[in-house]
Amino acid sequence: MKVATHNLRCTECGAVITGDAVNSIFRCPDCNGLYDVIYPWSPNGTTAISNSNLPNPSALRWLWQERRTSTLPIDQSGVWRFRDLFPIVENPENIVTLREGNTPLYQMPQCAKAVGLDSLFAKHQGMNPTGSFKDTGMTAALSVAADRKFEWVACASTGNTSAAMAAYAARAGLRSIVFIPEGKIAWGKLSQSMDYGALTIQLKTDFDGCVRILTELVTRFPIYLLNSVNPYRLEGQKTPAFEMLEQLDWEVPDHIIVPGGNLANGAALGKGFIEMHHLGLIPRMPKISIIQAEGANPLYRWFTDANRIMRPVKADTRATAIRIGNPASWRKSANVIDALGGWCEQASEQEIALAKAQIGAEGVGCEPASAVTFAGLKKLVALGKVSPEERVVLILTGHTLKDSQYTIDYHRGELLTEAEKSQISDADQAQHTALRKPPIVLEADSDVVLHALQSHMKMTQHA
Amino acid sequence: MKVATHNLRCTECGAVITGDAVNSIFRCPDCNGLYDVIYPWSPNGTTAISNSNLPNPSALRWLWQERRTSTLPIDQSGVWRFRDLFPIVENPENIVTLREGNTPLYQMPQCAKAVGLDSLFAKHQGMNPTGSFKDTGMTAALSVAADRKFEWVACASTGNTSAAMAAYAARAGLRSIVFIPEGKIAWGKLSQSMDYGALTIQLKTDFDGCVRILTELVTRFPIYLLNSVNPYRLEGQKTPAFEMLEQLDWEVPDHIIVPGGNLANGAALGKGFIEMHHLGLIPRMPKISIIQAEGANPLYRWFTDANRIMRPVKADTRATAIRIGNPASWRKSANVIDALGGWCEQASEQEIALAKAQIGAEGVGCEPASAVTFAGLKKLVALGKVSPEERVVLILTGHTLKDSQYTIDYHRGELLTEAEKSQISDADQAQHTALRKPPIVLEADSDVVLHALQSHMKMTQHA
Repeated sequence: MKVATHNLRCTECGAVITGDAVNSIFRCPDCNGLYDVIYPWSPNGTTAISNSNLPNPSALRWLWQERRTSTLPIDQSGVWRFRDLFPIVENPENIVTLREGNTPLYQMPQCAKAVGLDSLFAKHQGMNPTGSFKDTGMTAALSVAADRKFEWVACASTGNTSAAMAAYAARAGLRSIVFIPEGKIAWGKLSQSMDYGALTIQLKTDFDGCVRILTELVTRFPIYLLNSVNPYRLEGQKTPAFEMLEQLDWEVPDHIIVPGGNLANGAALGKGFIEMHHLGLIPRMPKISIIQAEGANPLYRWFTDANRIMRPVKADTRATAIRIGNPASWRKSANVIDALGGWCEQASEQEIALAKAQIGAEGVGCEPASAVTFAGLKKLVALGKVSPEERVVLILTGHTLKDSQYTIDYHRGELLTEAEKSQISDADQAQHTALRKPPIVLEADSDVVLHALQSHMKMTQHA
Repeated sequence: MKVATHNLRCTECGAVITGDAVNSIFRCPDCNGLYDVIYPWSPNGTTAISNSNLPNPSALRWLWQERRTSTLPIDQSGVWRFRDLFPIVENPENIVTLREGNTPLYQMPQCAKAVGLDSLFAKHQGMNPTGSFKDTGMTAALSVAADRKFEWVACASTGNTSAAMAAYAARAGLRSIVFIPEGKIAWGKLSQSMDYGALTIQLKTDFDGCVRILTELVTRFPIYLLNSVNPYRLEGQKTPAFEMLEQLDWEVPDHIIVPGGNLANGAALGKGFIEMHHLGLIPRMPKISIIQAEGANPLYRWFTDANRIMRPVKADTRATAIRIGNPASWRKSANVIDALGGWCEQASEQEIALAKAQIGAEGVGCEPASAVTFAGLKKLVALGKVSPEERVVLILTGHTLKDSQYTIDYHRGELLTEAEKSQISDADQAQHTALRKPPIVLEADSDVVLHALQSHMKMTQHA
């Protein structure tokens, strides 16, 4: 007899169903809420489980470490290495992996100093195979699609989600469709999904219209929906929390700072920490704060609204990966902030640009959306919400190569508008000036070059 | 008393010097040849060493595996994990790492089938932190620069080398300078080095002029030269050979296929295999074949020239990472082909484009230069130089995000000239047609979309 390894629970009304019983749009038929995946051992799980049946923390830690020496693809994956805490696939042979995860946790000494912290870490999810954190979720959800014998998968996205979906679909031998609005097509954002063989369909409507058509399609045809409403994506996206703790030798950080766009990522990491705490893997939980761009800040508005009402906004920011005005997973992230503590902050375009340049100058680099974390951290420190001795981890979500044009425009001095530049404080302006590195043109003469280096850069000659 | 851990040997005249004695341009003062790093245990090493002093193969394999469970940064690095075989840094605290290496070895079932092999692997060096294999070399050479107390580093490069140098220099707290020719600046290629804080100097000369000025500068000022003549870069670049063998459970592959540009990479991998064989880590060596673009094929010409004379060419190919007409390290690669066996082949622009699309359609992706490996493999199979049961590993050197524009132009049908298109065989044309995925525009109506999917894609409806 098949044993159900997991259930789905509506995050709005609490209704619980089996994984098999979910509809193709991953919405609660009663209240339209999104689902979370729950297990017999989950906090507030529905199946009674005695303590003796809880996964053993020491055994898990040992097992996860041992798998790092294995050459099996699912052990080499930094997501599936933790598969004991998300048994969502019936047949492990259906797991689709590109060796995602295993992302570095960098010390950020210069950024720490700039913001007045003793130390600062960055967990760089942009080092995943397609260059963003979406891979950790897609490996999970695509494996479920393969496990359930789907041949087609689809999402409405122009960016990192479509790139990740296309790569994992190709890997699994499934066919993938990307729906985008017609109009001025952003080819750069599509290059990866085309490279990985996805079919792109431009619909004569806006983004919400694309989501509507896709929703209709998946109810009529066996197309597996991979938009962020798919709860299995979050099961993969919670694993960086486990990996981070391993990298910190299981010493719990004080504060995790996450960029906020569609708001599934903070929710997934929060779920990971809550589960680890419940299972006794960690003795306490970190705070999780979420930072949004000023131009796409519905959660920030909700957080600072006395009545706590969520109102969608018209999104506008150069941090395209978080340019979302009506985030699907806002409730999940709101629940995490409430459960773990933490704050919601926002960052302006110039603050994002400066933070990105500072992260780049550490040799790390990231896409603009990732830089809101550091921009937000500066505010949290200034407000006294983060103190100097706290251990803070920034979640960098995308690789700097995801948006080369932003970097180019910044260093050419063509990124910010005059209005934006006029809002820059003197202190920030000094940093922009030090960090901007436009090319300089010199005669092809070593004396000229030496002179330039000596006068501008205080280089000292050989003794 | 300080024990010298390594020496340098001229690859042209064989002269041996200590690492400390090398000049700042890394050229033999007698014959202008390039150096290789050698150790007491090296094949043909200069210091007599008894067998009992050779590093023990079983102990090394065990040690390298154990380090994978460590949280120490130099153990987490897929390069420094193998540091026992390149003791080039005096003080390990000076090692500069971004957790490079640990790159995936992918099975490529669709490409294998397309070329008639039983199986095929791709070692994806584009999954390194800055998106190319250059990181494995830069972590080594930058660590030497830091170890020797340099404050400035420099290279002449517009592409992957400058990106890697800038990132590692920033990480080490050193300042980096990128020299490029003045003229129509390729901003895209510079975006990463600017992001990582490098200073870009455009000189009023051509690329050779940049190299000349840089060579003058490093003899007059304490600037550490990081062009590919630096022999320490190759010590890092040999480590993917070790990692690959680990991933294959120490079963030696039959054939490694490497893109050929400046030709240091094939040389470095060959050095790794030769050293492993000499130490008893592997019982035999793979062949190494090097593939060049038709428009930048000096090694191919040398290889097919009865007199074996190296003649520089004027390079022209869209595979920019290997667009090099006068490769600095050609002799080293030629020696490796002679020592290990293997061939040199070339690939046309349309063959490269097709191979890149095929690698992309496996969900893997790569920059154009990496795709020459698969294009060349097809020829080696057709010529009977690779047989169906052989275990072949393609070395993919760069991430697909390194050249998004190439991918976009390909799928828009704007990459190849009419002359290039006219040379495509019918068989290749059928594959191009199947792989090209230009977006299609449809009405925002699910019936219209379903009809399109059913008629064009043979999708079958829910039963």
